[in-house]
Amino acid sequence: MFAKKTMEELDRKSAEEMGLAQKNPIIIILDDVRSMQNVGAIFRTADAFAAEAIYLCGYTPTPPHRDIHKTALGATETVQWQHYADTASAINAAKEKGYRIYSVEQTHNSSTLQDIEACKNNPIALIFGNEVNGVSDEALSQSEQCIEIPQWGSKHSLNISVSVGVVVWDLVAKMNR
Amino acid sequence: MFAKKTMEELDRKSAEEMGLAQKNPIIIILDDVRSMQNVGAIFRTADAFAAEAIYLCGYTPTPPHRDIHKTALGATETVQWQHYADTASAINAAKEKGYRIYSVEQTHNSSTLQDIEACKNNPIALIFGNEVNGVSDEALSQSEQCIEIPQWGSKHSLNISVSVGVVVWDLVAKMNR
Repeated sequence: MFAKKTMEELDRKSAEEMGLAQKNPIIIILDDVRSMQNVGAIFRTADAFAAEAIYLCGYTPTPPHRDIHKTALGATETVQWQHYADTASAINAAKEKGYRIYSVEQTHNSSTLQDIEACKNNPIALIFGNEVNGVSDEALSQSEQCIEIPQWGSKHSLNISVSVGVVVWDLVAKMNR
Repeated sequence: MFAKKTMEELDRKSAEEMGLAQKNPIIIILDDVRSMQNVGAIFRTADAFAAEAIYLCGYTPTPPHRDIHKTALGATETVQWQHYADTASAINAAKEKGYRIYSVEQTHNSSTLQDIEACKNNPIALIFGNEVNGVSDEALSQSEQCIEIPQWGSKHSLNISVSVGVVVWDLVAKMNR
Protein backbone atom coordinates (compact mmCIF):
# COMPACT_ATOMS: atom_id res chain seq x y z
CA MET A 1 0.00 0.00 0.00
CA PHE A 2 1.19 3.50 -0.83
CA ALA A 3 0.58 6.20 1.77
CA LYS A 4 0.95 9.80 0.65
CA LYS A 5 3.77 11.76 2.27
CA THR A 6 2.64 14.59 4.55
CA MET A 7 3.99 18.12 4.02
CA GLU A 8 6.40 17.48 6.90
CA GLU A 9 7.59 14.23 5.39
CA LEU A 10 8.16 15.99 2.05
CA ASP A 11 10.59 18.18 4.03
CA ARG A 12 10.43 21.11 1.61
CA LYS A 13 12.68 24.10 2.17
CA SER A 14 11.41 27.40 3.62
CA ALA A 15 11.79 30.55 1.51
CA GLU A 16 14.84 31.45 3.65
CA GLU A 17 16.46 28.04 3.25
CA MET A 18 15.71 28.17 -0.48
CA GLY A 19 17.62 31.45 -0.76
CA LEU A 20 20.72 29.81 0.70
CA ALA A 21 20.38 26.40 -1.00
CA GLN A 22 22.60 25.34 -3.87
CA LYS A 23 20.78 25.69 -7.17
CA ASN A 24 21.02 23.79 -10.41
CA PRO A 25 23.01 25.97 -12.86
CA ILE A 26 20.11 26.71 -15.22
CA ILE A 27 18.78 30.17 -16.11
CA ILE A 28 15.40 30.34 -17.86
CA ILE A 29 15.16 33.28 -20.29
CA LEU A 30 11.63 34.17 -21.41
CA ASP A 31 11.66 36.04 -24.72
CA ASP A 32 8.37 38.00 -24.99
CA VAL A 33 6.15 35.38 -23.35
CA ARG A 34 2.63 36.75 -23.16
CA SER A 35 0.56 34.70 -20.72
CA MET A 36 0.55 35.38 -16.98
CA GLN A 37 -0.54 31.80 -16.36
CA ASN A 38 2.43 30.43 -18.25
CA VAL A 39 4.82 32.74 -16.40
CA GLY A 40 3.34 31.64 -13.06
CA ALA A 41 3.61 27.93 -13.91
CA ILE A 42 7.22 28.48 -15.03
CA PHE A 43 8.05 30.05 -11.64
CA ARG A 44 6.60 26.98 -9.92
CA THR A 45 8.69 24.67 -12.14
CA ALA A 46 11.84 26.74 -11.52
CA ASP A 47 11.25 26.41 -7.77
CA ALA A 48 10.67 22.64 -7.95
CA PHE A 49 13.80 22.01 -9.99
CA ALA A 50 15.86 24.69 -8.16
CA ALA A 51 16.80 26.67 -11.26
CA GLU A 52 19.27 29.50 -10.65
CA ALA A 53 17.06 32.31 -12.00
CA ILE A 54 14.40 33.42 -14.46
CA TYR A 55 15.08 36.38 -16.76
CA LEU A 56 11.81 37.98 -17.91
CA CYS A 57 12.38 39.91 -21.15
CA GLY A 58 10.54 42.47 -23.24
CA TYR A 59 6.79 42.38 -22.64
CA THR A 60 6.90 39.19 -20.54
CA PRO A 61 4.78 40.07 -17.46
CA THR A 62 6.53 40.38 -14.09
CA PRO A 63 5.39 39.72 -10.52
CA PRO A 64 3.66 40.76 -8.41
CA HIS A 65 0.42 40.16 -10.30
CA ARG A 66 -2.72 38.33 -9.24
CA ASP A 67 -2.84 36.25 -12.43
CA ILE A 68 0.81 35.17 -12.12
CA HIS A 69 0.21 34.27 -8.47
CA LYS A 70 -2.69 31.94 -9.43
CA THR A 71 -0.29 29.45 -11.00
CA ALA A 72 2.98 30.42 -9.24
CA LEU A 73 1.47 29.81 -5.79
CA GLY A 74 4.24 31.67 -3.99
CA ALA A 75 7.18 30.58 -6.15
CA THR A 76 7.80 34.22 -7.16
CA GLU A 77 9.11 34.66 -3.58
CA THR A 78 11.59 31.78 -3.77
CA VAL A 79 12.98 31.99 -7.31
CA GLN A 80 15.47 34.71 -8.26
CA TRP A 81 14.22 36.77 -11.19
CA GLN A 82 15.09 39.89 -13.11
CA HIS A 83 13.44 41.91 -15.87
CA TYR A 84 15.35 42.97 -19.00
CA ALA A 85 13.95 45.43 -21.53
CA ASP A 86 15.22 43.23 -24.34
CA THR A 87 16.30 39.61 -24.64
CA ALA A 88 19.73 40.55 -26.05
CA SER A 89 20.64 42.20 -22.72
CA ALA A 90 19.50 39.13 -20.77
CA ILE A 91 21.57 36.87 -23.02
CA ASN A 92 24.63 39.06 -22.53
CA ALA A 93 24.15 39.04 -18.75
CA ALA A 94 23.96 35.22 -18.75
CA LYS A 95 27.02 34.96 -21.03
CA GLU A 96 29.01 37.17 -18.68
CA LYS A 97 28.16 34.80 -15.84
CA GLY A 98 29.62 31.94 -17.87
CA TYR A 99 26.33 30.41 -19.07
CA ARG A 100 26.09 28.71 -22.47
CA ILE A 101 23.09 29.93 -24.46
CA TYR A 102 20.67 27.32 -25.84
CA SER A 103 17.38 28.19 -27.53
CA VAL A 104 14.48 25.75 -27.27
CA GLU A 105 13.13 25.89 -30.82
CA GLN A 106 12.46 23.70 -33.83
CA THR A 107 15.16 24.81 -36.26
CA HIS A 108 17.42 23.41 -38.92
CA ASN A 109 20.50 21.97 -37.21
CA SER A 110 18.76 21.73 -33.85
CA SER A 111 19.81 18.89 -31.52
CA THR A 112 17.17 16.64 -30.01
CA LEU A 113 16.73 16.89 -26.25
CA GLN A 114 17.97 13.34 -25.52
CA ASP A 115 21.29 14.18 -27.20
CA ILE A 116 22.01 17.30 -25.14
CA GLU A 117 24.61 16.67 -22.47
CA ALA A 118 24.49 18.46 -19.14
CA CYS A 119 26.59 18.46 -16.00
CA LYS A 120 26.81 20.76 -13.00
CA ASN A 121 30.06 22.32 -14.20
CA ASN A 122 28.49 23.64 -17.39
CA PRO A 123 25.84 26.25 -16.61
CA ILE A 124 23.13 26.49 -19.27
CA ALA A 125 20.77 29.37 -20.08
CA LEU A 126 17.63 28.25 -21.91
CA ILE A 127 15.68 30.66 -24.10
CA PHE A 128 11.94 30.00 -24.54
CA GLY A 129 9.97 32.14 -26.97
CA ASN A 130 6.57 33.67 -27.40
CA GLU A 131 3.53 31.32 -27.43
CA VAL A 132 2.79 32.01 -31.12
CA ASN A 133 6.04 33.10 -32.73
CA GLY A 134 8.59 31.08 -30.76
CA VAL A 135 12.12 32.35 -30.11
CA SER A 136 12.94 35.56 -32.04
CA ASP A 137 15.48 35.41 -34.86
CA GLU A 138 17.68 37.84 -32.96
CA ALA A 139 17.83 35.56 -29.90
CA LEU A 140 18.41 32.53 -32.15
CA SER A 141 21.41 34.30 -33.71
CA GLN A 142 22.93 34.75 -30.23
CA SER A 143 22.48 31.05 -29.37
CA GLU A 144 25.20 28.44 -29.41
CA GLN A 145 22.78 25.60 -29.97
CA CYS A 146 19.07 24.89 -30.47
CA ILE A 147 17.27 22.16 -28.53
CA GLU A 148 14.28 20.45 -30.14
CA ILE A 149 11.83 18.36 -28.11
CA PRO A 150 11.08 15.42 -30.42
CA GLN A 151 7.38 15.16 -31.16
CA TRP A 152 5.39 12.39 -32.77
CA GLY A 153 2.00 14.07 -33.03
CA SER A 154 -0.05 16.22 -35.36
CA LYS A 155 0.28 19.57 -33.61
CA HIS A 156 2.89 22.23 -34.03
CA SER A 157 4.27 22.35 -30.50
CA LEU A 158 3.76 21.87 -26.79
CA ASN A 159 2.40 24.48 -24.39
CA ILE A 160 5.34 26.66 -23.30
CA SER A 161 5.05 25.89 -19.58
CA VAL A 162 5.02 22.17 -20.41
CA SER A 163 8.10 22.66 -22.65
CA VAL A 164 9.94 24.40 -19.81
CA GLY A 165 9.08 21.51 -17.47
CA VAL A 166 10.23 18.87 -19.96
CA VAL A 167 13.56 20.52 -20.85
CA VAL A 168 14.48 21.66 -17.34
CA TRP A 169 13.63 18.21 -15.91
CA ASP A 170 15.70 16.46 -18.58
CA LEU A 171 18.79 18.64 -17.96
CA VAL A 172 18.47 18.69 -14.15
CA ALA A 173 18.18 14.88 -14.10
CA LYS A 174 21.38 14.67 -16.17
CA MET A 175 23.15 17.20 -13.92
CA ASN A 176 22.26 15.18 -10.80
CA ARG A 177 23.07 11.70 -12.09
CA MET B 1 22.66 30.52 -37.84
CA PHE B 2 19.50 28.69 -36.84
CA ALA B 3 16.48 29.06 -39.14
CA LYS B 4 13.11 28.00 -37.75
CA LYS B 5 11.47 25.05 -39.49
CA THR B 6 8.31 25.89 -41.39
CA MET B 7 5.08 23.96 -40.73
CA GLU B 8 5.81 21.92 -43.87
CA GLU B 9 9.34 21.16 -42.75
CA LEU B 10 8.03 20.03 -39.36
CA ASP B 11 6.05 17.46 -41.37
CA ARG B 12 3.41 16.90 -38.70
CA LYS B 13 0.76 14.24 -39.23
CA SER B 14 -2.84 15.05 -40.26
CA ALA B 15 -5.66 13.95 -37.94
CA GLU B 16 -6.27 10.99 -40.30
CA GLU B 17 -2.60 9.96 -40.35
CA MET B 18 -2.49 10.36 -36.56
CA GLY B 19 -5.37 7.88 -36.20
CA LEU B 20 -3.40 5.24 -38.10
CA ALA B 21 0.05 6.01 -36.67
CA GLN B 22 1.73 3.76 -34.11
CA LYS B 23 1.43 5.22 -30.64
CA ASN B 24 3.66 5.05 -27.61
CA PRO B 25 2.07 2.52 -25.20
CA ILE B 26 1.11 5.03 -22.51
CA ILE B 27 -2.40 5.69 -21.19
CA ILE B 28 -2.94 8.83 -19.12
CA ILE B 29 -5.62 8.38 -16.44
CA LEU B 30 -6.95 11.60 -14.90
CA ASP B 31 -8.45 10.99 -11.46
CA ASP B 32 -10.88 13.86 -10.70
CA VAL B 33 -8.83 16.62 -12.34
CA ARG B 34 -10.75 19.86 -12.06
CA SER B 35 -9.29 22.44 -14.44
CA MET B 36 -10.34 22.66 -18.10
CA GLN B 37 -7.06 24.37 -18.91
CA ASN B 38 -5.06 21.53 -17.43
CA VAL B 39 -7.12 18.93 -19.31
CA GLY B 40 -6.62 20.85 -22.58
CA ALA B 41 -2.84 21.15 -22.08
CA ILE B 42 -2.69 17.41 -21.28
CA PHE B 43 -4.44 16.62 -24.59
CA ARG B 44 -1.82 18.70 -26.41
CA THR B 45 1.00 16.85 -24.62
CA ALA B 46 -0.60 13.46 -25.36
CA ASP B 47 -0.75 14.41 -29.05
CA ALA B 48 2.89 15.60 -29.14
CA PHE B 49 4.22 12.45 -27.48
CA ALA B 50 1.73 10.13 -29.27
CA ALA B 51 0.24 8.62 -26.12
CA GLU B 52 -2.21 5.78 -26.73
CA ALA B 53 -5.20 7.35 -24.93
CA ILE B 54 -6.47 9.59 -22.13
CA TYR B 55 -9.04 8.23 -19.66
CA LEU B 56 -11.01 11.08 -18.06
CA CYS B 57 -12.50 9.92 -14.76
CA GLY B 58 -15.11 11.13 -12.30
CA TYR B 59 -15.67 14.88 -12.51
CA THR B 60 -12.72 15.48 -14.87
CA PRO B 61 -14.23 17.68 -17.63
CA THR B 62 -14.58 16.19 -21.12
CA PRO B 63 -14.49 17.72 -24.61
CA PRO B 64 -16.00 19.41 -26.44
CA HIS B 65 -15.74 22.54 -24.31
CA ARG B 66 -14.55 26.03 -25.20
CA ASP B 67 -12.19 26.21 -22.19
CA ILE B 68 -10.58 22.84 -22.96
CA HIS B 69 -10.15 23.88 -26.59
CA LYS B 70 -8.24 27.04 -25.55
CA THR B 71 -5.24 24.97 -24.45
CA ALA B 72 -5.85 21.74 -26.43
CA LEU B 73 -5.84 23.63 -29.75
CA GLY B 74 -7.42 20.74 -31.65
CA ALA B 75 -5.65 17.86 -29.91
CA THR B 76 -9.01 16.54 -28.66
CA GLU B 77 -9.59 15.48 -32.30
CA THR B 78 -6.35 13.51 -32.60
CA VAL B 79 -5.99 11.82 -29.20
CA GLN B 80 -8.18 8.84 -28.27
CA TRP B 81 -10.10 9.47 -25.06
CA GLN B 82 -12.84 7.93 -22.99
CA HIS B 83 -14.80 8.99 -19.91
CA TYR B 84 -15.25 6.67 -16.92
CA ALA B 85 -17.64 7.42 -14.06
CA ASP B 86 -14.98 6.31 -11.59
CA THR B 87 -11.23 5.84 -11.70
CA ALA B 88 -11.46 2.19 -10.57
CA SER B 89 -13.28 1.29 -13.83
CA ALA B 90 -10.64 3.08 -15.90
CA ILE B 91 -7.87 1.25 -14.07
CA ASN B 92 -9.58 -2.10 -14.66
CA ALA B 93 -10.01 -1.31 -18.37
CA ALA B 94 -6.29 -0.48 -18.66
CA LYS B 95 -5.31 -3.62 -16.73
CA GLU B 96 -7.43 -5.77 -19.06
CA LYS B 97 -5.50 -4.29 -22.00
CA GLY B 98 -2.24 -5.41 -20.36
CA TYR B 99 -1.16 -2.03 -18.99
CA ARG B 100 0.79 -1.78 -15.74
CA ILE B 101 -0.67 0.79 -13.37
CA TYR B 102 1.65 3.49 -11.98
CA SER B 103 0.45 6.44 -9.92
CA VAL B 104 2.35 9.71 -10.08
CA GLU B 105 2.35 10.71 -6.43
CA GLN B 106 4.70 11.49 -3.57
CA THR B 107 4.26 8.45 -1.31
CA HIS B 108 6.27 6.24 0.98
CA ASN B 109 7.98 3.59 -1.13
CA SER B 110 7.62 5.64 -4.33
CA SER B 111 10.35 5.27 -6.97
CA THR B 112 12.00 8.36 -8.39
CA LEU B 113 11.31 9.07 -12.05
CA GLN B 114 14.93 8.50 -13.19
CA ASP B 115 14.79 4.97 -11.79
CA ILE B 116 11.63 3.92 -13.65
CA GLU B 117 12.39 1.67 -16.60
CA ALA B 118 10.30 1.78 -19.75
CA CYS B 119 10.33 -0.03 -23.07
CA LYS B 120 7.80 -0.37 -25.87
CA ASN B 121 6.89 -3.92 -24.86
CA ASN B 122 5.69 -2.86 -21.42
CA PRO B 123 2.61 -0.63 -21.73
CA ILE B 124 2.20 1.77 -18.81
CA ALA B 125 -0.92 3.52 -17.54
CA LEU B 126 -0.12 6.64 -15.50
CA ILE B 127 -2.59 7.98 -12.93
CA PHE B 128 -2.49 11.72 -12.18
CA GLY B 129 -4.66 13.09 -9.40
CA ASN B 130 -6.67 16.14 -8.51
CA GLU B 131 -4.86 19.52 -8.36
CA VAL B 132 -5.27 19.82 -4.58
CA ASN B 133 -5.67 16.30 -3.21
CA GLY B 134 -3.48 14.30 -5.58
CA VAL B 135 -4.22 10.68 -6.49
CA SER B 136 -7.06 9.19 -4.39
CA ASP B 137 -6.21 6.49 -1.85
CA GLU B 138 -8.46 4.06 -3.74
CA ALA B 139 -6.50 4.57 -6.99
CA LEU B 140 -3.20 4.31 -5.07
CA SER B 141 -4.31 0.94 -3.68
CA GLN B 142 -4.86 -0.34 -7.24
CA SER B 143 -1.37 0.79 -8.36
CA GLU B 144 1.62 -1.44 -8.79
CA GLN B 145 4.08 1.37 -8.23
CA CYS B 146 4.25 5.09 -7.44
CA ILE B 147 6.44 7.47 -9.41
CA GLU B 148 7.80 10.55 -7.66
CA ILE B 149 9.26 13.49 -9.59
CA PRO B 150 12.27 14.53 -7.49
CA GLN B 151 11.99 18.14 -6.41
CA TRP B 152 14.56 20.42 -4.85
CA GLY B 153 12.41 23.44 -4.10
CA SER B 154 10.19 24.89 -1.39
CA LYS B 155 6.78 24.12 -2.91
CA HIS B 156 4.59 21.09 -2.50
CA SER B 157 4.38 20.03 -6.13
CA LEU B 158 4.41 20.92 -9.82
CA ASN B 159 1.40 22.03 -11.85
CA ILE B 160 -0.38 18.88 -13.03
CA SER B 161 -0.05 19.59 -16.77
CA VAL B 162 3.69 20.18 -16.25
CA SER B 163 3.92 16.88 -14.30
CA VAL B 164 2.22 15.03 -17.15
CA GLY B 165 4.69 16.53 -19.63
CA VAL B 166 7.72 15.65 -17.50
CA VAL B 167 6.70 12.03 -16.79
CA VAL B 168 5.39 11.22 -20.28
CA TRP B 169 8.49 12.76 -21.90
CA ASP B 170 10.81 10.79 -19.60
CA LEU B 171 9.10 7.45 -20.34
CA VAL B 172 8.62 8.07 -24.09
CA ALA B 173 12.32 8.99 -24.41
CA LYS B 174 13.23 5.72 -22.69
CA MET B 175 10.81 3.75 -24.90
CA ASN B 176 12.34 5.22 -28.07
CA ARG B 177 16.01 4.90 -27.13
